[in-house]
Amino acid sequence: MLRRRIALGLEYDGSQFEGWQTQPHGRTVQDVLERAIAAFAEETVTTICAGRTDAGVHACGQVAHFDTLRNREEFSWVRGVNRFLPPQISLRWARYVDSEFHARYCARARHYDYWIWNESVRSPLAHARVGWVFRPLNVDAMQAAAERLLGTHDFSSFRSAQCQSASAIRTLVRCDVGRIDRQLVRIRVSANAFLHHMVRNVVGALVAVGTGRYSVEWISQVLEARDRKHAAATIEACGLYLTGVEYDAKYGVPEPDERLLFR
Amino acid sequence: MLRRRIALGLEYDGSQFEGWQTQPHGRTVQDVLERAIAAFAEETVTTICAGRTDAGVHACGQVAHFDTLRNREEFSWVRGVNRFLPPQISLRWARYVDSEFHARYCARARHYDYWIWNESVRSPLAHARVGWVFRPLNVDAMQAAAERLLGTHDFSSFRSAQCQSASAIRTLVRCDVGRIDRQLVRIRVSANAFLHHMVRNVVGALVAVGTGRYSVEWISQVLEARDRKHAAATIEACGLYLTGVEYDAKYGVPEPDERLLFR
Repeated sequence: MLRRRIALGLEYDGSQFEGWQTQPHGRTVQDVLERAIAAFAEETVTTICAGRTDAGVHACGQVAHFDTLRNREEFSWVRGVNRFLPPQISLRWARYVDSEFHARYCARARHYDYWIWNESVRSPLAHARVGWVFRPLNVDAMQAAAERLLGTHDFSSFRSAQCQSASAIRTLVRCDVGRIDRQLVRIRVSANAFLHHMVRNVVGALVAVGTGRYSVEWISQVLEARDRKHAAATIEACGLYLTGVEYDAKYGVPEPDERLLFR
Repeated sequence: MLRRRIALGLEYDGSQFEGWQTQPHGRTVQDVLERAIAAFAEETVTTICAGRTDAGVHACGQVAHFDTLRNREEFSWVRGVNRFLPPQISLRWARYVDSEFHARYCARARHYDYWIWNESVRSPLAHARVGWVFRPLNVDAMQAAAERLLGTHDFSSFRSAQCQSASAIRTLVRCDVGRIDRQLVRIRVSANAFLHHMVRNVVGALVAVGTGRYSVEWISQVLEARDRKHAAATIEACGLYLTGVEYDAKYGVPEPDERLLFR
């Protein structure tokens, strides 16, 4: 039998899982996904994902891969594995890919959205789906600060103490702040790769500018300091969504769609 | 001490409650709300709402009223009661109103949105927030059918067997079907008042037209039959949102806002 590699597109409600990475207690996205694949394929598999999301972080565009001896139609994988998954997680697509494909190492860009509920009163319907900032946010100041982070920099000021990357150099290619609705602010961030907690630390700093606590110039000082203790607090996980991962077209993996979840 | 009447704007995640109406088990919106008001006002109150939503039905524009001897600033009621409410429910506003005001009897119009996730794969992030129809929906046919329901009619074919209204005559002033995003269809419905399960039965019938099971003409036959057994199945509760209630401007109650929850 031929062992083949499959790439998967995944969506999940992060509030229901203790992050991506497998844990002995088994309440992670990886654990639940691997149990469902094993139940459908009658074969033990190990999955590797593009972005190991933290507890509370959502995804509508996570990509993962695994190897299998089972031969099924691509959409049969979607339908079949989804039958064994709880409502809080689902496969969106499945593609047979070349054995060179690696969900993590082949990723050229990752896209994240951070949603902020910006109103004096919290929203029950957005609970665990957005970060809440009750002070009014100056979106123009946030955008001006965001632009100072674009390009290739040492992002040490925006990585967590637990970050295990050898290098803190990353290339931020997009950082757009927009008021999508009266009460909703969205921050879209794209980079080749991110450091641990980098998006949440960037958003925390932008919020500190948006509330007027710090000036736009301050964010450049934070970046240049290359030291986490100069930045603002990490914003809560629940507003963060991994919306897409990009690969070379030769792999035939679907491109990220621009689906909006709220407005 | 002067007893005064207060009107409240409410938002809640219906998946966390057994409907609006008080029950001995206490897990309803009314029970949780009255306990929170009692905790803040140190006074037992009874609330009356504009639309008694069923289990699973959400609201971002529910209106209720109660009478109290406590004298507080309007926004203090919002902040204070919210402190005693779980994250799944919150007050959006509070207004002192004339004692003639009655949340239910003074309502001139109610607005509901029904959201459908229309894709072959279910959405974890929309779980318990949308109805799911995996067959492609013809939105133009649904809109043509919707227009046949506009105006004043006997809606007996669209009321539940449990409906206790003396008359089945209602005036439907809006029934708009739109594809908001590739995977999302929204149906906006407004009437002076609704019968029990009326919105869910109307949406169920529109879906039966949208999937091609019935023709546009069929919905007129259903309406004319004035008999529930001629209609389609009731659609699930979780896609339904009470978005607003309208009153005469003399009461000074905030107008419904057009906030979108998904797209």
